[in-house]
Amino acid sequence: MSFQNPVFIPGPTNIPERLRKACDMPTIDHRSPLFGQILHPARAGVQAVLKSETAEVFIFPSTGTGGWETALTNTLSAGDGVLAARNGMFSHRWVDMCQRHGLAVEVVETPWGEGLPADRYEEILTADTEHRIKAVLATHNETATGVRSDIAAVRRALDKAGHPALLFVDGVSSIGSMDFRFDDWGVDVAVTGSQKGFMLPAGLAIVGFSPKAMEATRTGTLPRTFFDVHDMTRGYANSAYPYTPAVGLMNGLNEACRMLLDEGLENVFARHHRIAEGVRAAVRAWGLDLCAASPDVYSDTVSAIRTPEGFNATDIVTHAASKYGVAFGVGLGEVAGKVFRIGHLGSLTDVMTLSGIATAEMCMADLGLDVPLGSGVAAAQAYFRSHSAASVLKAA
Amino acid sequence: MSFQNPVFIPGPTNIPERLRKACDMPTIDHRSPLFGQILHPARAGVQAVLKSETAEVFIFPSTGTGGWETALTNTLSAGDGVLAARNGMFSHRWVDMCQRHGLAVEVVETPWGEGLPADRYEEILTADTEHRIKAVLATHNETATGVRSDIAAVRRALDKAGHPALLFVDGVSSIGSMDFRFDDWGVDVAVTGSQKGFMLPAGLAIVGFSPKAMEATRTGTLPRTFFDVHDMTRGYANSAYPYTPAVGLMNGLNEACRMLLDEGLENVFARHHRIAEGVRAAVRAWGLDLCAASPDVYSDTVSAIRTPEGFNATDIVTHAASKYGVAFGVGLGEVAGKVFRIGHLGSLTDVMTLSGIATAEMCMADLGLDVPLGSGVAAAQAYFRSHSAASVLKAA
Amino acid sequence: MSFQNPVFIPGPTNIPERLRKACDMPTIDHRSPLFGQILHPARAGVQAVLKSETAEVFIFPSTGTGGWETALTNTLSAGDGVLAARNGMFSHRWVDMCQRHGLAVEVVETPWGEGLPADRYEEILTADTEHRIKAVLATHNETATGVRSDIAAVRRALDKAGHPALLFVDGVSSIGSMDFRFDDWGVDVAVTGSQKGFMLPAGLAIVGFSPKAMEATRTGTLPRTFFDVHDMTRGYANSAYPYTPAVGLMNGLNEACRMLLDEGLENVFARHHRIAEGVRAAVRAWGLDLCAASPDVYSDTVSAIRTPEGFNATDIVTHAASKYGVAFGVGLGEVAGKVFRIGHLGSLTDVMTLSGIATAEMCMADLGLDVPLGSGVAAAQAYFRSHSAASVLKAA
Amino acid sequence: MSFQNPVFIPGPTNIPERLRKACDMPTIDHRSPLFGQILHPARAGVQAVLKSETAEVFIFPSTGTGGWETALTNTLSAGDGVLAARNGMFSHRWVDMCQRHGLAVEVVETPWGEGLPADRYEEILTADTEHRIKAVLATHNETATGVRSDIAAVRRALDKAGHPALLFVDGVSSIGSMDFRFDDWGVDVAVTGSQKGFMLPAGLAIVGFSPKAMEATRTGTLPRTFFDVHDMTRGYANSAYPYTPAVGLMNGLNEACRMLLDEGLENVFARHHRIAEGVRAAVRAWGLDLCAASPDVYSDTVSAIRTPEGFNATDIVTHAASKYGVAFGVGLGEVAGKVFRIGHLGSLTDVMTLSGIATAEMCMADLGLDVPLGSGVAAAQAYFRSHSAASVLKAA
Repeated sequence: MSFQNPVFIPGPTNIPERLRKACDMPTIDHRSPLFGQILHPARAGVQAVLKSETAEVFIFPSTGTGGWETALTNTLSAGDGVLAARNGMFSHRWVDMCQRHGLAVEVVETPWGEGLPADRYEEILTADTEHRIKAVLATHNETATGVRSDIAAVRRALDKAGHPALLFVDGVSSIGSMDFRFDDWGVDVAVTGSQKGFMLPAGLAIVGFSPKAMEATRTGTLPRTFFDVHDMTRGYANSAYPYTPAVGLMNGLNEACRMLLDEGLENVFARHHRIAEGVRAAVRAWGLDLCAASPDVYSDTVSAIRTPEGFNATDIVTHAASKYGVAFGVGLGEVAGKVFRIGHLGSLTDVMTLSGIATAEMCMADLGLDVPLGSGVAAAQAYFRSHSAASVLKAA
Repeated sequence: MSFQNPVFIPGPTNIPERLRKACDMPTIDHRSPLFGQILHPARAGVQAVLKSETAEVFIFPSTGTGGWETALTNTLSAGDGVLAARNGMFSHRWVDMCQRHGLAVEVVETPWGEGLPADRYEEILTADTEHRIKAVLATHNETATGVRSDIAAVRRALDKAGHPALLFVDGVSSIGSMDFRFDDWGVDVAVTGSQKGFMLPAGLAIVGFSPKAMEATRTGTLPRTFFDVHDMTRGYANSAYPYTPAVGLMNGLNEACRMLLDEGLENVFARHHRIAEGVRAAVRAWGLDLCAASPDVYSDTVSAIRTPEGFNATDIVTHAASKYGVAFGVGLGEVAGKVFRIGHLGSLTDVMTLSGIATAEMCMADLGLDVPLGSGVAAAQAYFRSHSAASVLKAA
Repeated sequence: MSFQNPVFIPGPTNIPERLRKACDMPTIDHRSPLFGQILHPARAGVQAVLKSETAEVFIFPSTGTGGWETALTNTLSAGDGVLAARNGMFSHRWVDMCQRHGLAVEVVETPWGEGLPADRYEEILTADTEHRIKAVLATHNETATGVRSDIAAVRRALDKAGHPALLFVDGVSSIGSMDFRFDDWGVDVAVTGSQKGFMLPAGLAIVGFSPKAMEATRTGTLPRTFFDVHDMTRGYANSAYPYTPAVGLMNGLNEACRMLLDEGLENVFARHHRIAEGVRAAVRAWGLDLCAASPDVYSDTVSAIRTPEGFNATDIVTHAASKYGVAFGVGLGEVAGKVFRIGHLGSLTDVMTLSGIATAEMCMADLGLDVPLGSGVAAAQAYFRSHSAASVLKAA
Repeated sequence: MSFQNPVFIPGPTNIPERLRKACDMPTIDHRSPLFGQILHPARAGVQAVLKSETAEVFIFPSTGTGGWETALTNTLSAGDGVLAARNGMFSHRWVDMCQRHGLAVEVVETPWGEGLPADRYEEILTADTEHRIKAVLATHNETATGVRSDIAAVRRALDKAGHPALLFVDGVSSIGSMDFRFDDWGVDVAVTGSQKGFMLPAGLAIVGFSPKAMEATRTGTLPRTFFDVHDMTRGYANSAYPYTPAVGLMNGLNEACRMLLDEGLENVFARHHRIAEGVRAAVRAWGLDLCAASPDVYSDTVSAIRTPEGFNATDIVTHAASKYGVAFGVGLGEVAGKVFRIGHLGSLTDVMTLSGIATAEMCMADLGLDVPLGSGVAAAQAYFRSHSAASVLKAA
């Protein structure tokens, strides 16, 4: 197995050396006070990354999918109404989970490539005068299509409709990389994992609950034990855990928060935007289109790139892996074969990004697409040169 | 944080260097063929450790508790009958989980320190002529009391009763350290985690399903998504996973199985028995009793040691941590304050064990118990000298 | 400190994950038999990499410079004649060392950028009828100029002159990356370090002595203790060492040899040639020249690139570090300010190389050189596409 | 290879987790400013550990033996007089090195087990009215015999004799573990390595030069290049190095100094004394004697333990390794077969020490010595209980 090239999948990301070492921890007694020295700052760090002062943060040895289940099973009861849009594979899967748990989901089918339809949400919520809808699902960043949605707009839709439903936001591929405002946006449950913006290995579901969501946990009757937030709350109060915690990963999470907050969240977001713009400049230079329908929904963590009709975009991913040892993301679901994805989140530099762009170019050329070698690289270089954080020559 | 002394908690265990390195892995694309090279041998390795040829092995980014939930939610429906004994904290918690999920548990209260009452199981099962009981729970090794139960006897109880209930076995603190015979004992679901016999950090639920248990997944209607074994099965068939896998830990699991199988399971079990006997020799030398009621239920992975009336056993644990930097286990639930526990599972040597025994002695003396210094150590030394695997002097 | 981008210095190289882990070893008793299990295969591995069946391999906790000193002090005596050419900074330094140790060096001044003058060597050796010259120094690959010399030709010069001098070859930046034939070329002492072709951290001098060189150690009277090869030989015979060995690095060396030999030396050399050709294609596309005077002396491990008159090449290196976080090599000695260097040895891929080329382009553009963005990248991409080891589409 | 048990050799020591990680560093450009951020604090840290304000600290990729050679070759010339005592294997080897380098050593033969004869030194120095003696060698802690000598007394001998010779001190197995006062004792060159008090892997020679020693480097004519301190000085002034530095180890050294200074040097020394006293209590309980002749020369880093006449002490070491997987030190030179050694320096706890004592007991019993099991352990426990740093019960 070779680990020389960076990965360009939309998570798990390249893991910074510092986090590799924070996770690789010898065993400590998780019932000793040492554990509290990891648990509490990790939770406080996540809260800060969420830009929240009130979110109750839960950390499960699980993944984002477990975070979704945490949101649903702690607050809802069988038969409860849920409003959701399906505009990509991950919003689709969350809807599917609702259905498996006996929730009555109203699904707004939305073209893959578009953002969440806040207007349509508003209409439906306004019409739901009996408040059968208990929760609204919103995928902040559709990893499958590279589409960022406007969560503030969803909040406004709820507010305009005067609707009390909880707002659940999937921030798996946005939190820690793109601006996320738990308090400002009135988010009730935010869900993410360790392997995206936090740059860690997969293995943690990281979930924030608003006070209103905590209130709802008193009435939700869906069965749950592993993902029960009350057990967590009771444990945390004693620096403990309801079962054996993933201590090393939590230590890594603590360190990851420190990295993000030390760099400054706005700097982190600006860095992701700069790198994403470089990738998008390359895509334009290639004469290709993004799956994302318009600039206002461009994701700063992943770009899904449409290939020409008749071309199987998945071949690029397979070819990059076999010939060049580089991992890109395939298209999923409705856009399978139609797009390939370049992940550009987590711990990535302009320089690493250029190697991904250069590889994509070689692959497209190898597979017969009319993409001039160096064209995308040059476009990204031009952008990076003039926007690099350290563009004033320090060493002059 | 100092990591110099070994830990003597009954899991997570001391992690061997080789497994530390196997887990500490850079990111790979879990949708690439590389992942299959980890997934498949890891599953095959677990199957071998379970001594099974038929168990379908599932690996979740979770813990043993998630494994319990996997067993219940995939095979049972709300209102189903479950038979269980409560003889320690961990059997208690599994019972509690059943209740939370709406199962009708018949609990056989059993003194903490005794094994599972197979005879009583047989009576109840025989009486259940309508087969309302769909599953029998059995905790192979009660980590709280240091009691190993006879799973073969539970199987015989089912067979004698001619009862079709599924047999679910919690092997969290036994599998990989003590003999476990999935096929021979007719186990339907076996549950463990990564942080005990497999000597890894916590973060994996490892579960084996018999063909009969797989059959039951078709009818079980308890809601589940994260722990759904069908999603796993579908994924595995394509060397894939229904969500992001904990690749590093799975790589570690693969390596851990190789370590166990290379050493030889019977050798691994004999090593655990030898070390446990050394600890028990020390306990006898101290004039103390085990919580385990009789030698036939002595656990080879953890010893819960009763302290004299009026003495708070938990003080030993607190004192060992604060004065000597050593972690032992406290008593839980009914035996809180009455016992302290020495974990002796995973990657432990005679020599490391002696340092734990020596520390316990110092703590007991510090806290006023009449335990002669060196007494337990001498008893364990005597045992180890004559039973060490390498007792024939190789260098002679 | 960030470690995200690859380094492009001509050593130390990027360290493969596998070697990082091999070096990061807990303490073992270096007087126990375990040490022999590292020492002997490491020495045998180096011998194989040297393509030698007779070389006595010595491994010192030191660097290549210590290897030079090992060669001189074990075989020569004060006042002995040494023949050397100075065609770069590293040949210069070896000459300087000879002078410090009281050797009478005859230096053939050679333009920096040219290879060793074998013809001139032949003349001088032929003229040395009294055989005052006891050793001929040859720098196989001048790291400062990116020039590979023809060692076989130096051997022929010795042979034609019928001269018995020892042939000492500095293979620091060639061995393990470029073809090196200890036996075929009649090398008497070969010197390298751990941090180049062996892809390890710096900290080992690795030296091979021919039987003839071993013979010379009986008569050489230069004072030495740390670098004494007799102490080493005596130690090795007992799987021991005259002082405390750098066990982790030696374990890494053992593993590095396994990596090189498993890949196949010819494949390793071809890979370095391919990557070097990609870099050279980029240099041509930029309209720049190599310091190396002609293709027959092009180095496959490092390219020294001349920048236009009036431009300070060192600015590229400083700027790359400060703005893009990428390390290139500066020009040294006579070519300081005139060249910058791209190291392309050790564990490097086409994809990583492209990111180095792309960075150099941005730097040159930032600093006002007329280098079109993407031009060098495109040239290298074109080369890599058609010469990549895996160029037949495996996944088709 | 198993790494479970601690090692009890007198260096290399058990490496703390924190230092393992500090050493295991990806490649940086050692010609970039990053290197200075490691080099300068590492040198300052060593200076503080030496309790010096004037020592010029040099760090070579080498070992303590290289440090000896640095001391000699930089300050002395062939034929210079050197005064030394031989009271163990390591003082013997340094004498041998002097002889190989053409120095005229006056050797004071001293019984192995005794400290340096300061009185005899004074006599010889007083008699040397022509000041032919240019340097006095003093082994602070003889690792072979577990004997600590009085360096202040040696300084007094020089002063009383009014002799200008340089004072060279081998502090390899003392510096960082036992009190060492470079300035107070008027040390001119102090030598140590990375693998003892600094708790790192072997691979660094760490040397401090007084201003007077620096002055002597102007006149010393012994040939040297690799160990030349002028090249180092010139490099350091530019945050550079005369050849490729062992960056990871130096980063580890920096971190090790921080660990020692954060703990407080006096606390570090007290900890070593406590652990050594525990070991010595065990030795007394066994009815055995130390090689060290009297308490005033007992070493706090290593105990050499005499075994009864007719018994081969080396068998203990071989047996401990083969049967129990534990490394002790053998006797060397004159005391080979007569002593075995327990190293107790570096990162060791009371608890780890007890496991070493327990193992030694088992070995002695296995091999027929009349040592009651548990006897030494009990003696050490008694000592540790009443002298442990945290002996006030924190958790009460």
